[in-house]
Amino acid sequence: MVLVKDLSRYEGAEVTLAGWVDQLRIHGKVAFVVVRDGTGYVQNVLVKKELPGEVWDLAVSLSQETCVEVTGVVRAEPRSPGGYEMGLATLRVLGPSPEYPIQPKEHGVEFLLDHRHLWLRSSQQRAGLRVRSEVEQAIHDFLYERDFVRVDTPILTGSIGEHAGTLFTTDYFGEDAYLAQTGQLYVEAACPAFRNVYCFGPTFRAEKSKTRRHLTEFWMVEPELAFVDSQGNMAFQEEFVSYLVERALERCRPELEYLERDLSRLEKVKPPFPRVSYTEAVARLQEKGSRIQWGQDIGGADETLLSEDHDLPVFVYNYPTGVKAFYMKENPQDPSTVLCDDLIAPEGYGEIIGGSQREDDLDRLLARIHEEDLPVEAYAWYLDLRRYGSFPHSGFGLGLERTVAWITGRRHIREMIAFPRLINRLYP
Amino acid sequence: MVLVKDLSRYEGAEVTLAGWVDQLRIHGKVAFVVVRDGTGYVQNVLVKKELPGEVWDLAVSLSQETCVEVTGVVRAEPRSPGGYEMGLATLRVLGPSPEYPIQPKEHGVEFLLDHRHLWLRSSQQRAGLRVRSEVEQAIHDFLYERDFVRVDTPILTGSIGEHAGTLFTTDYFGEDAYLAQTGQLYVEAACPAFRNVYCFGPTFRAEKSKTRRHLTEFWMVEPELAFVDSQGNMAFQEEFVSYLVERALERCRPELEYLERDLSRLEKVKPPFPRVSYTEAVARLQEKGSRIQWGQDIGGADETLLSEDHDLPVFVYNYPTGVKAFYMKENPQDPSTVLCDDLIAPEGYGEIIGGSQREDDLDRLLARIHEEDLPVEAYAWYLDLRRYGSFPHSGFGLGLERTVAWITGRRHIREMIAFPRLINRLYP
Repeated sequence: MVLVKDLSRYEGAEVTLAGWVDQLRIHGKVAFVVVRDGTGYVQNVLVKKELPGEVWDLAVSLSQETCVEVTGVVRAEPRSPGGYEMGLATLRVLGPSPEYPIQPKEHGVEFLLDHRHLWLRSSQQRAGLRVRSEVEQAIHDFLYERDFVRVDTPILTGSIGEHAGTLFTTDYFGEDAYLAQTGQLYVEAACPAFRNVYCFGPTFRAEKSKTRRHLTEFWMVEPELAFVDSQGNMAFQEEFVSYLVERALERCRPELEYLERDLSRLEKVKPPFPRVSYTEAVARLQEKGSRIQWGQDIGGADETLLSEDHDLPVFVYNYPTGVKAFYMKENPQDPSTVLCDDLIAPEGYGEIIGGSQREDDLDRLLARIHEEDLPVEAYAWYLDLRRYGSFPHSGFGLGLERTVAWITGRRHIREMIAFPRLINRLYP
Repeated sequence: MVLVKDLSRYEGAEVTLAGWVDQLRIHGKVAFVVVRDGTGYVQNVLVKKELPGEVWDLAVSLSQETCVEVTGVVRAEPRSPGGYEMGLATLRVLGPSPEYPIQPKEHGVEFLLDHRHLWLRSSQQRAGLRVRSEVEQAIHDFLYERDFVRVDTPILTGSIGEHAGTLFTTDYFGEDAYLAQTGQLYVEAACPAFRNVYCFGPTFRAEKSKTRRHLTEFWMVEPELAFVDSQGNMAFQEEFVSYLVERALERCRPELEYLERDLSRLEKVKPPFPRVSYTEAVARLQEKGSRIQWGQDIGGADETLLSEDHDLPVFVYNYPTGVKAFYMKENPQDPSTVLCDDLIAPEGYGEIIGGSQREDDLDRLLARIHEEDLPVEAYAWYLDLRRYGSFPHSGFGLGLERTVAWITGRRHIREMIAFPRLINRLYP
C-alpha cells in the first residue's frame, strides 16, 4: 500500500492506497473524492463514462469519513496541493460512516470536546498536534545531544510537592498517595549520578478555582543542571526555547502556515532574551497603570503588559521569597528575594517556564520548609541531598501545551493536547 | 568548568572540575582521590611534599560523596580507566558528606530502596539507568524516523481499561477518575488523523496480590498502526525490538560490560523472531511436563520453559479469546481465538510485548463488551471509531522496565526505574 506523501515516486503507475473520505464533489459526469490517509490528502478523479456503473454509484454515495481503499493511476496535477492526483479505477469501502457527527458547519466547543475522539481528524487539530509531536521530539533531541540523562520521576508520591490542597489523592494500599505536580525534587537526586538530567511527563493540578481553560493534567519537561547558577540557567533556557521554535519552523512550516501563524515573529526568537528583574518589572507595570505592589505575584494580565514591550520571550528574575516555592535559593545580594526566573512568552501567551537555582544550604532549606509549614518527614530524602555532598544546581519546568499554543499561535491550550482534562471534563 | 569525559582535550593544561568523592586512598606521602562528575571518574594524585599542608590535610580527610571542586594538571596515565589523571593543586569542598549512609559493605535491599535517592549514585544503578535513558531515546528515534506522530494519552480517565478491580481511583471534582492502565484506546482514535501514532508514558496497576517485585507504576510505549494486520504487527515489533537492542549495544557498551552482560546473546537479536501459535505452545509445554491446558493463560514459569528453546525473543500468537482483552480481533480462521501476540524475551525475562489486531467490527466489539460486563456508556466514544470509518489496525505495548532488565541482564525490574513504586513503597 502506498502513502499520499510518497505519490511523486509513482507518477504514471497504478497504486492502491487507503484512507478516509474528506470531501466529495460531483460535477455532472465527473466526481472528485478527496481522501486523507494521515500523511496527506489526494484528490481522486472519477469520470462516469470510464467506470463500471457500480463503482460510480458507490463513489457518489460516499459520506464523510468513510474508510476506503482506492486504486488508480497517479498523475501530475499542478493545481493539486501535493502536485499529484489519482484517476480512480476501483474503490472499496472498508468502513462506512453514516451521519458523521462533525459537519463543516460551526459546532460549539463543548460539542467538539465531547467528540474529541473524532475532532482530532480535522485539519486545524491535526496541524496543532503535529507541531506538538515535533516539539516533543525536539525536546528529547536537544537534551540527548547535550548528554542529559532522562530520569522518569514517579506520578504516585507519598510526599507532596509545592501546594497542598491542589493535589489529586488516591488510596495506595491503605496509605494516601498524591499525583505529582512536578518531578523536580526527584531529578535533583539524580544529578550526582548523571550531572545533567531531565524528566518529561504528565503533571497534575486539582485546582477547582481555575477556569475551564486550565488543564488539570498537562505535560512538563524539567531539566536540572548541576554546577549551574541562575544566570547559566537562563542562558540554557533561551537556547532551549530558541531551538524548539527553530525546529517547528524547519519541520512544521506547512502546519504553521495552515494555522496562519505569523512566521516572522517566530523567526526573531533567538538568544539572548531580555532580562528584567522583578523589582524593575513592578516599576514598569506601575508606570503602565497596573496596581501591582512590590511583594505580590505577577498575574496573567500583568504578564501580558510586560510582554508588550518585547518581540522576544522575556525573563523576569529574582521574585520575592514569599510568592515562590520553598526550594528556591535565597539571593545573597538581597535575602528578601530568591534566585529564580519566569520566562514570559510574547504576544500575551504568558509564562511558559518557571526556573530557579535551588537552595543548597541544609539549614536554610529546613527553615523554609518550616516557614511554609510543610511536613518535614516527607522531605527527609530531599534534605539528604543537602546532607551528603550538596552542590550548586539549577533547573526549570517548561509547560508543553502553553509553549505549543504560543508557537502555533492558538489561543486555547485545551487544543494543544489530544484528550484535554478540564475541571468539567474526563470524557472522552 | 571541564567535564571528565572531555579530559583528553586538555592534556598538559591546568583545569578545574567539580564532582563527588568516590574513593580516597592514602599511601604514605601520596594520596589518590577519585572524583565522579556524572560524566566519568578521574583520579587526582596528591603528593604531600608538593602541596601546602592545609590542602593535603583537607584531602586526606575527605569522606565519601563529599562534593568538591578540584584544580590540577591533566596528564596521560594509561593505567587509568579514561587514560588520564590529574595532579591535584587546589581543592575546595562545596558540600561535605559526613557519615554517608551507603557504605561499600553489603546492605539489604529494603535499606537500599529506602535510600534510593542516594543509591542512584552507585555504579551498578547508574549503568542500568543510563541504558534505560538510551533505550527511551531509541524508542522515540525509531518511531520519529518512521513518521509516527506522538500522541500523549490521559492518565486521568473516566472510562476504564482492561481489568476492573486493579485500578487506582481518585476523586475528580465529585466524579471518580481512574489512573490509566493503557493509552491504547486513545491512540486508536488518533490513527485516522495521523495514520501511525504512539504514546509513551507511565501506566498503573493496583494489583495487591502481586509480589514485591512488581511495579505499580511502570512505563509503556504503545504504537498503533493503521491498515496493518496481526502479521504486519509482529514484523514491526521484531524490527523495533531489534533496533532497541542494537542501540544499547552501539551506545551503551561500557555500561553493559560493567554489568557483565553476555553481549554475544544480544548480538544475535535480529529479525525474524520465531513464531509459535498458542496451540503449538501448549502442546510443547505439555511435552515439557507443564500441566497447562488449552484455554488457560500462559504463566511466567511456562513462558520461561518456552524461551528455553530459543536464543531470540519468541512470539506466541492467537490466544484463546477468554484470556485476552475485549478489543482483540476475532480470528476468522478460528473464532475461539483472537489475532494477538505476546513477545517473550529470552533467558527467562518473560513477556515484554503484548500486541493484537483490534476488533474493527462494531457488532462484534459491542458483543465482547457485553460479554465482559464492561460499562458500555464509558466506551461509547471508542465504539464511535467503529461507527465512523472503521479501519483495520493493530498495535502493541512494550513494557520499558522489563525490556531494559532483559537488555542489561538484571533480575529486578525495580532497579530499572529511578524511583520504583511497589505495593509497600511510595518513598522516596
